[in-house]
Amino acid sequence: MSGPANAPLVVTSLQNDRVKSIRALDMRKERKATGLFVAEGASIIMTAREHGWQPETLVARSDALGDGVAKDLSAWVVATGGDVMAVSEAVLAKLASKENPQSLLAVFKQRLAPLPDPRTQDADDVWVVLEEVRDPGNLGTIIRTVDAVGAKGVILVGQCCDPWSRECVRATMGSIFAVPIARAERGPFLDWRQQWPGDVVATHLSAREDFRSADYRGPALLMMGSEGPGLGDALSAVATRRVKIPMAGRLDSLNLAVATALVLYQMRARHLKLTD
Amino acid sequence: MSGPANAPLVVTSLQNDRVKSIRALDMRKERKATGLFVAEGASIIMTAREHGWQPETLVARSDALGDGVAKDLSAWVVATGGDVMAVSEAVLAKLASKENPQSLLAVFKQRLAPLPDPRTQDADDVWVVLEEVRDPGNLGTIIRTVDAVGAKGVILVGQCCDPWSRECVRATMGSIFAVPIARAERGPFLDWRQQWPGDVVATHLSAREDFRSADYRGPALLMMGSEGPGLGDALSAVATRRVKIPMAGRLDSLNLAVATALVLYQMRARHLKLTD
Repeated sequence: MSGPANAPLVVTSLQNDRVKSIRALDMRKERKATGLFVAEGASIIMTAREHGWQPETLVARSDALGDGVAKDLSAWVVATGGDVMAVSEAVLAKLASKENPQSLLAVFKQRLAPLPDPRTQDADDVWVVLEEVRDPGNLGTIIRTVDAVGAKGVILVGQCCDPWSRECVRATMGSIFAVPIARAERGPFLDWRQQWPGDVVATHLSAREDFRSADYRGPALLMMGSEGPGLGDALSAVATRRVKIPMAGRLDSLNLAVATALVLYQMRARHLKLTD
Repeated sequence: MSGPANAPLVVTSLQNDRVKSIRALDMRKERKATGLFVAEGASIIMTAREHGWQPETLVARSDALGDGVAKDLSAWVVATGGDVMAVSEAVLAKLASKENPQSLLAVFKQRLAPLPDPRTQDADDVWVVLEEVRDPGNLGTIIRTVDAVGAKGVILVGQCCDPWSRECVRATMGSIFAVPIARAERGPFLDWRQQWPGDVVATHLSAREDFRSADYRGPALLMMGSEGPGLGDALSAVATRRVKIPMAGRLDSLNLAVATALVLYQMRARHLKLTD
């Protein structure tokens, strides 16, 4: 007898092919070639489950699989047709990220959403458009904030950093599984935007309207540019509303994720209420 | 003749002792032992100058020192008694950070501010208190935001990440030179806080007051906890006002730098106006 068909694959060799292929997902080109990505930590993987995602592979330290969350997640992965790998401490150390390593990680298939249909958006809907965002920590934080304010999703325009990198996924704290991510080149985005029925908002240094007093007309797009240069001319030109975030003293910019959050809280203000 | 007394020290060897000692500042214990830190990039170094800081050492690529910003900064450093090191591409590559390397970097002496005197604060003053903040990117982003809203400074309580790390300094975008940073253990902080004349604000999941409708009584302290556990019980207990940031759906937390920025913009709202 060799045990039940779905028994975990026990791996202790650092040279194992599956170990190598998961490790290779640290490289963007490998994520692109395979369409896979890695999420680390029990709570992020549970968030994936809540939102209807199933991992291809769950990796857990052998001694943790016997009970608790690891056992529970392992049963779920087996039931949904995925593989469970029980690995040694050494293998886990090779697969987990160096900062804040976790005892569980999982490999998922990437999902890109299509651009939303402009004709079917509700008046309350907000999508965040990010042009050439470069920092995966910022992108992940923005995805998390989009989730927190109940905005609809994120549209990546032009050459952006990879939403499926470990750093971005970690910064989302699980919201990568809750928030639709769409992607478009600049030209197709500008074409699509022509059908958008509500406000197309841009933050701009030369704007005369305070972001806190604007009356945003939904459904709305909030366009934010990349970390240094900001929003490019082509996207700026198609804004229907330009707003400015006032600052004190000599400063004229904020961290991108901070600026995005400030405007999002304003745009979604009436839907964000304390409940008890 | 060996050139003028203040001619730059030309360094091409990776084994040079000064190269090694600057490189060693990547380690927290070395920063602690020497009281020094590294800031990278011309614009951050110019911000330091605006705020009355002088580097101990300026490091520039040899071929860049002849003109432009590097020449200008080099003359300033020599005039203020610092050293200029002209280095080869290879040495610079060893000293500059791997992500987004710059052709100029400088070594500065750390400056910690004392805890502010509670008796001399203006009604508009806001200080941000961070308990056990762990992520240098978050800390740097918060320092940047404190600068942007015209708050007075940051007080680090307990075991925090190092504000003088490269990652933190980079995330401040130069605000590390503009914003006073104080530090205190929990006990001394709680003693000091007893003299504070205005509101001591904490964000809390169980709070009943929306952060957007609170009437903050200055001078104010805004206390924020660390990334996972949030504010500890000891600090929570001394808050005079607890506020909550409402969220949509299942989420109950935001990125620390985002949450801090949202409350800061509210607390400083009447001082943040568009000017033209």
